[in-house]
Amino acid sequence: MSNAAAKVEALHFPHRHLLTVEGLGATEINFLLDLADSAADDNRQVGKRRDILRGRTLINLFFEASTRTQSSFEMAAKRLGGDVMNMNVSTSSVQKGETLIDTAITLNAMRPDIIVVRHHAAGAVELLAQKVDCSVVNAGDGSHQHPTQALLDALTIRRAKGRIAGLTVAICGDILHSRVARSNIILLNALGARVRIAAPSTLLPAAPERLGAEVYTDMWKALEGADVVMMLRLQRERMEGSYVPSSREYFHFFGLDHEKLARAKPDAIVMHPGPMNRGVEIASTVADHSSSVIREQVEMGVAVRMAVLEALARNLPKR
Amino acid sequence: MSNAAAKVEALHFPHRHLLTVEGLGATEINFLLDLADSAADDNRQVGKRRDILRGRTLINLFFEASTRTQSSFEMAAKRLGGDVMNMNVSTSSVQKGETLIDTAITLNAMRPDIIVVRHHAAGAVELLAQKVDCSVVNAGDGSHQHPTQALLDALTIRRAKGRIAGLTVAICGDILHSRVARSNIILLNALGARVRIAAPSTLLPAAPERLGAEVYTDMWKALEGADVVMMLRLQRERMEGSYVPSSREYFHFFGLDHEKLARAKPDAIVMHPGPMNRGVEIASTVADHSSSVIREQVEMGVAVRMAVLEALARNLPKR
Amino acid sequence: MSNAAAKVEALHFPHRHLLTVEGLGATEINFLLDLADSAADDNRQVGKRRDILRGRTLINLFFEASTRTQSSFEMAAKRLGGDVMNMNVSTSSVQKGETLIDTAITLNAMRPDIIVVRHHAAGAVELLAQKVDCSVVNAGDGSHQHPTQALLDALTIRRAKGRIAGLTVAICGDILHSRVARSNIILLNALGARVRIAAPSTLLPAAPERLGAEVYTDMWKALEGADVVMMLRLQRERMEGSYVPSSREYFHFFGLDHEKLARAKPDAIVMHPGPMNRGVEIASTVADHSSSVIREQVEMGVAVRMAVLEALARNLPKR
Repeated sequence: MSNAAAKVEALHFPHRHLLTVEGLGATEINFLLDLADSAADDNRQVGKRRDILRGRTLINLFFEASTRTQSSFEMAAKRLGGDVMNMNVSTSSVQKGETLIDTAITLNAMRPDIIVVRHHAAGAVELLAQKVDCSVVNAGDGSHQHPTQALLDALTIRRAKGRIAGLTVAICGDILHSRVARSNIILLNALGARVRIAAPSTLLPAAPERLGAEVYTDMWKALEGADVVMMLRLQRERMEGSYVPSSREYFHFFGLDHEKLARAKPDAIVMHPGPMNRGVEIASTVADHSSSVIREQVEMGVAVRMAVLEALARNLPKR
Repeated sequence: MSNAAAKVEALHFPHRHLLTVEGLGATEINFLLDLADSAADDNRQVGKRRDILRGRTLINLFFEASTRTQSSFEMAAKRLGGDVMNMNVSTSSVQKGETLIDTAITLNAMRPDIIVVRHHAAGAVELLAQKVDCSVVNAGDGSHQHPTQALLDALTIRRAKGRIAGLTVAICGDILHSRVARSNIILLNALGARVRIAAPSTLLPAAPERLGAEVYTDMWKALEGADVVMMLRLQRERMEGSYVPSSREYFHFFGLDHEKLARAKPDAIVMHPGPMNRGVEIASTVADHSSSVIREQVEMGVAVRMAVLEALARNLPKR
Repeated sequence: MSNAAAKVEALHFPHRHLLTVEGLGATEINFLLDLADSAADDNRQVGKRRDILRGRTLINLFFEASTRTQSSFEMAAKRLGGDVMNMNVSTSSVQKGETLIDTAITLNAMRPDIIVVRHHAAGAVELLAQKVDCSVVNAGDGSHQHPTQALLDALTIRRAKGRIAGLTVAICGDILHSRVARSNIILLNALGARVRIAAPSTLLPAAPERLGAEVYTDMWKALEGADVVMMLRLQRERMEGSYVPSSREYFHFFGLDHEKLARAKPDAIVMHPGPMNRGVEIASTVADHSSSVIREQVEMGVAVRMAVLEALARNLPKR
């Protein structure tokens, strides 16, 4: 057994669910990242596949469509030998008037091992987790939390930069609607990064300083000397009734182009959680530039989800 | 081999399809219930999984969306080691003008082992079964039959009460549109229960006495001394053009609250096939009360479907 | 090892993708058909299942719904022991503004082994293939290509007639919108058949003689002495803005009935790629006649897709 493998074996993740990154300590986070690092290497090496989920069933319960996240969890579970059931909730019992809790109770009675949930309402996943015996992973609830996104971003940064502590990370764009931003700020702080957020004031929450980051409304200043530039998707679908900037206007002030990027460190990396609106949040040439690690984020997404599923599966009753 | 297992091995289910509960004898039914009982125990014991469907393919062909039933069959097949293909028929060839029979012939030519079908028209599943070489399970056809629902209800009753023969079962609500009611009346009669139905006269079929149950239009009287109270979902989606009662009015006369439930035996159990309209057919506090076995119905759903798939798979040509 | 198996082992398919039948030589095509022939026999013999895709993941990426083709690929992959991820693209990131190329890059980063793509735009699948490391199979792009359909048609003909070279094949109907026709003409020519096309002039492309077949606007003449009559689906959904014939009118001139069929050879076989519009392109009695091999086409569809997946998997890096 290699040292790295021994280290991984020696630790564990003492939780039944992964609902939020709040409250996770650096040791736990690094345990998950180490596990994911090794899963990522396995995925690149041909011939490796683990059986830790053999005989286990994961339910992908998505109340909001998300091909990217759903398929990332599905791929992760299948690489671990698990069975996956995808639940298309838009065509489900929910339409027949069933409550979230009844859905939870129903699924629980089928005795799955892990339920992965995305829901449009903040807090819904936590509520569901209280009603079931199995493990629950939050795959995004409203504008609240998206823990595996924060973990995959951290892993991507750590692999690109060799560390996270001491780095300056600028998170830019639609902070108001972004669970990605919220989860990243908490996780990056726990790992010792210095986090800045930059957004137009209309896309900042009230009292943005409470988020735990330095707040900028001028993106140019936020990028000054940054090691990591993390762009967010402009979530027009969540902007009902409020002021929606035009794409051109938004790109001018908050879209990442080479000129703005030049304010960051020369070796800064560029990130985006996807799906990208090219020419809105990010110039196409920046997205495809050598400083971009956007593709690696997707790859690390599968690895991190494998790590999370493996960590939770270790705590499940033996089958 | 335990006695129970020996008994299960000694018998079999001499049918290629499960299309209806009509015509099933008590021996066959009990064979399936015994098999399901043992599957249910396995599902609760960690570490058990059977391989009886390894290398077999089940197609879940749902012309009507039903997350609950579809996922129950999917879970059952996967616990038996089978492959599952879900067919989303609302986005399928059917929209390109293909007939039900051509769909059946097409799927059959792909050589699946079992097709599970839900269809909005009574009789459609039987028609389909005539066109294929594989086994077919009716997962609900119009307001006609839903055999696995009746089997799971019987298993739930048997586990709660230790027997079915001699029990008084009151089935209450929208009898007119309910395949659940039709299947349950037949199956419970075959097992020696005394069955009552209670509904407003607008939600009873013509000549309701032909259904094979005692007919009540006063729910209070129907519940008198009942061992089992089985509520039905109010199927508003099937009530086009006819009188639809208001939720409040319906609940007053036919919703199960603690007051009405007090007419049943003190140890009566409460059932509902789901998804529930809380506050319409059933008071929330009754649904969550200790007399409710609604969660166990879902659990037994997976076990009964495992039993049905196993029984049919035994009759398939060897692979 | 049988002679046939030895022959199959000795050859290979020297391509990473299957995007088009253009450029395929008779040796390569026959290699795939031989492999498919043996897969078809396995599928009929109970007890056979191959593990060539064990540990491999196939993504079914369908930008256009097609239950038939999608499930055929899914069945094929599962029979080879592979994992399948179905991507429902109508509810996906594409709706959030992501480009085809970003979708490709994202999926590629998840490290699947094979992506099967259907897209409404000609050329889209080839574009996607340029952006990924894995193998890509074209499952139909616009009115351009549908290579596995042409292969399954060829296999069906070869099994029915014992050969393809020298046969006269009449392809009749909506040539204009048909990728099936385009792919079949090329493949059948490569295998030495004599190909005729018959369509009303409004359903022929400009310069139809360039397609590589004898062109007829009189179906009666096209059928004269034909060994194979291949009907096409009338693709009304692709006829926006142009003249759409009525079903009755179309059937009169271009629907296959027994009278027209009598012009072909007495032992001619009848084909249709499905889904059929009975009474429009083909009389119901012809579709169900003993000369029809329409069901076998579906069966050969699974076998041909197994062969294609197996051939491509042999060229993948070892896992």
